[in-house]
Parts: sequence; structure tokens; C-alpha cells
Amino acid sequence: MEPYSTELFHRVFSGRPTVFCYLAAQVSMTFFDQLKFDGSGLIPAIIQDQSTGRVLMMAWMNRASLEKTIATGKTHFWSRSRQKFWMKGETSGHTQAVKDIAFDCDGDTLLIQVEQVGAACHEGYRSCFYRSVGDGGAGVKVTEPQIIPPDQIYLKK
Amino acid sequence: MEPYSTELFHRVFSGRPTVFCYLAAQVSMTFFDQLKFDGSGLIPAIIQDQSTGRVLMMAWMNRASLEKTIATGKTHFWSRSRQKFWMKGETSGHTQAVKDIAFDCDGDTLLIQVEQVGAACHEGYRSCFYRSVGDGGAGVKVTEPQIIPPDQIYLKK
Repeated sequence: MEPYSTELFHRVFSGRPTVFCYLAAQVSMTFFDQLKFDGSGLIPAIIQDQSTGRVLMMAWMNRASLEKTIATGKTHFWSRSRQKFWMKGETSGHTQAVKDIAFDCDGDTLLIQVEQVGAACHEGYRSCFYRSVGDGGAGVKVTEPQIIPPDQIYLKK
Repeated sequence: MEPYSTELFHRVFSGRPTVFCYLAAQVSMTFFDQLKFDGSGLIPAIIQDQSTGRVLMMAWMNRASLEKTIATGKTHFWSRSRQKFWMKGETSGHTQAVKDIAFDCDGDTLLIQVEQVGAACHEGYRSCFYRSVGDGGAGVKVTEPQIIPPDQIYLKK
């Protein structure tokens, strides 16, 4: 299928009779209808740096935070521990500009391409996945440099 | 920290008295001790194609499937719907050779680099994330070619 342009969408459907509004609603529901949120209304979102391919983090979204992500072009999540919305970078300034939103064959995971400002990880690393397992499952190795001291991250905004 | 070699590990600890076995257990627990499995004993594993950086899929592991993944060098998961272990490619032959296992700052997500044989997706696409959202959240676009007809995937082994 080809993508639908929002601009075209509004040009075609704006001010049209009810039947057109009904069709418009059908089109705009297509994406969300293919998603499966879990029993808590959540879906995991993998965040990938579009320019490098580096996977930066994984966090959870509910439908409202996904809608906000699409509407603002900045990633918004749902914190399971704090039970509240959060925008990535709202305190640190390390925001993520959304470039693409993909979803998997089962519709139960999102893959979001972003342009990351600064460090995605609150520990000061570019990616949250800065540690790998040593050979055979024993031990741990750090695989990338810390780019910002953690105690300076929340002073930056 | 530097990785510990399994070969070295066995050379050093094999056949040693109890105190060495205790130390060996401490070393081998390092990685698992930093992981947080959820209330169902599961952790999400993001699977990435090491050579291209393409995110291929996301599936769930419990500790036993992760241990099996490390021991065999092939990805093994836990099916939440079928409540059983499965090895990627066990029916299709589209296996994943493990190249690296990373984990995030919170210890609650894995990122596994693999060498993928064939299609990761049961729909015949290289990646399960073959669909993206159209502009503004309306509509869906297919972003990569189907490399194998789905009805031929499970005839290949």
C-alpha cells in the first residue's frame, strides 16, 4: 500500500459530507487497528538511531502516548513504574525527533526511527545497550564510551 | 570489564575444590544477576541483523531460553501464546546465529546481534517490521520486498 498524505487527506475530506468523514475515519484508523496493545493497554517501542542504525532504547507506549508521538514528532512514552506520561528529553533536553514508525507482523511491537539529541541513556551513554555479555555467558563488557557524566544530564536543559 | 572466556573458565575451574566452584558460580552469575525478568519470568529480546543493522524482530525469552541461546549460539525463545520453547528456524530453517548479546541500563531488555538465514518474518519478509505508518498517522506503507512466499517458508527445511 502507498502512504496517505495528511495534507492530501485534509484537502480531500475537509468540509465534505458525512460519508466522506466516515471514509476519512476509516483511513485514519488503519494503522491503529493493526496494533495489539497488551492487557495493560501498552505496546513496546524499540527506538533506533536512523543515521547509524544503533538501537538506542526500548520503552512502552499506550495509545495516547503514541498519538502524541505522531502529533508532535517527539517520542512520548508511558512509565509503568510512575504510571504517567513522559516525553524523552523533557528534563535532559535529549529529545528524539521521529523519522519513521514501523510495526511488526503481529502488530504488537513498534520500531521507531529517530534523530537523537545527545545521550539516549540516563547513564550518559549514546545507547542504553552499552553492555554486552562476555563469551559463553560469563562476565560483562562495556562496548561504547560514556559521552556525558550522568550527574550532568539533568542540568543541561 | 573485560569478557571472561568460557574456555579459560573451564580450564581454570574444572576439577578444582569447592571454593573454586563457588568462585566460578559467582563469575558466571554476573550477567544474569543484572537482568530483570518480568512477573512472568520473561524479558523482551530485540533481534538485530549484525551486518546491516536492520532490526528483524522482537520476541520473549525466559532464563532457560536465554541460557539455551548462549549455549547453542542459536536464538531460542519462549512462546507466550503456546507456552513452550521455540528455536527460531526450527521448522523453516531460517535460523539466527548469535554474534552478540547486549542488555540495557535497566537490565530489562536484551539486544541480540545475529546472522540471519533467509527471512526473519513468517510473512516472508527479511524483517518483521516491513510496514511503516504513513504521514501523520494515516495509512500504512510496505517498506521492503517480500523475499519468500509465506506458503513456501515451512517447506524449506
